[in-house]
Amino acid sequence: MHTQDFDRSKHVYKNDAFIELVKDAVHFFNGTPVHTLPPPEIFFGVGVYAIYYTGQNPTYKKYSELNRLSYDFPIYVGKAVPSGWRQSRISHSEDNSSTELFSRLRRHSNNIVAVENINLEDFKCRFVIFESDGSDMISTIEALLIKLNRPLWNSALDGFGNHDPGKGRYEQANSDWDVIHKGRAFAEKLKCIPKPKDIILNNIKKHLDTLKKT
Amino acid sequence: MHTQDFDRSKHVYKNDAFIELVKDAVHFFNGTPVHTLPPPEIFFGVGVYAIYYTGQNPTYKKYSELNRLSYDFPIYVGKAVPSGWRQSRISHSEDNSSTELFSRLRRHSNNIVAVENINLEDFKCRFVIFESDGSDMISTIEALLIKLNRPLWNSALDGFGNHDPGKGRYEQANSDWDVIHKGRAFAEKLKCIPKPKDIILNNIKKHLDTLKKT
Repeated sequence: MHTQDFDRSKHVYKNDAFIELVKDAVHFFNGTPVHTLPPPEIFFGVGVYAIYYTGQNPTYKKYSELNRLSYDFPIYVGKAVPSGWRQSRISHSEDNSSTELFSRLRRHSNNIVAVENINLEDFKCRFVIFESDGSDMISTIEALLIKLNRPLWNSALDGFGNHDPGKGRYEQANSDWDVIHKGRAFAEKLKCIPKPKDIILNNIKKHLDTLKKT
Repeated sequence: MHTQDFDRSKHVYKNDAFIELVKDAVHFFNGTPVHTLPPPEIFFGVGVYAIYYTGQNPTYKKYSELNRLSYDFPIYVGKAVPSGWRQSRISHSEDNSSTELFSRLRRHSNNIVAVENINLEDFKCRFVIFESDGSDMISTIEALLIKLNRPLWNSALDGFGNHDPGKGRYEQANSDWDVIHKGRAFAEKLKCIPKPKDIILNNIKKHLDTLKKT
């Protein structure tokens, strides 16, 4: 077998229908019911979710204004993919008996409860479940929701989704999120010097100034 | 605003056309030219790639047989997404002037050259570039290629894609890949006890026994 001459154009994939399909999924997402965080019932499935803030914390006041009439501006977007998905170890039947999406939302709730100056009752969530082959869409839809909404906790304020790095890995700094929201047990074990709070608050302000109702 | 009663079915997204579209992209992928690793020319773009092995290392001999007539069985599948993609900080114009996909393939080449018992000339690669909004497909196509092909280095032999964890984070074990392929500088700094080689070799054998031409 010989390899061919190099021609970049032979490697470029184009398909406009894909863009339309993805927009359809985003449209569906934006029409799903809004629930408390975590949702009131445990449920099966994997998928994509958005978290909305409507409380009175001065740092995030802008989100209360943006979401006054409808939940249009998430503060965080995330996904729950089947465990073992990266290694393709899982069958679809397992996805459907996983409560990974609900568990993710509950873990976020616990993180919010653990910290200062935000209250769980000021958060709401929205989510879409993708079943069987549809679960291949999850990363795409999450990426697009982040790109469209630029949620603060996915962009200018990193760290909400972080895990405990574990024993022997505490020689790092607190995330920006943990500087603003003190209280997570693992964050208190981290030994290095984080970004100064005033710089982080300034980044938040700059980011929120870019978000506007259209 | 009040939240609604919980009804799981309102959150399930279904779209069969999506599945067809993704299959079209995979079909395109499988028809792209095969090149040396790294490809002979530097090029712009982000996307998805597969790496094929056709050498004589006894551990991987099965891949030589599977790929004898055509490159159907990758040993590794990966993606190069725009830098800052997770944080949605990037504009599409930046994707198109990034050489991230080529750089990724070159980095893999360097890793192969650094280690024992595999030779760079026994590897080939295939890749597809996704431009502008199409880059939203990258994660989906990568996931599907992994699911369809179950490449050994994505599943039973973890670690090929690992980076140097950096100062203060060496208190971990070598990946399975680094046990089988000694030589990466960062791997030699890791302090914990890795999985025994005979167990890893047995996992490889079991995995390769599941791969069959259809």
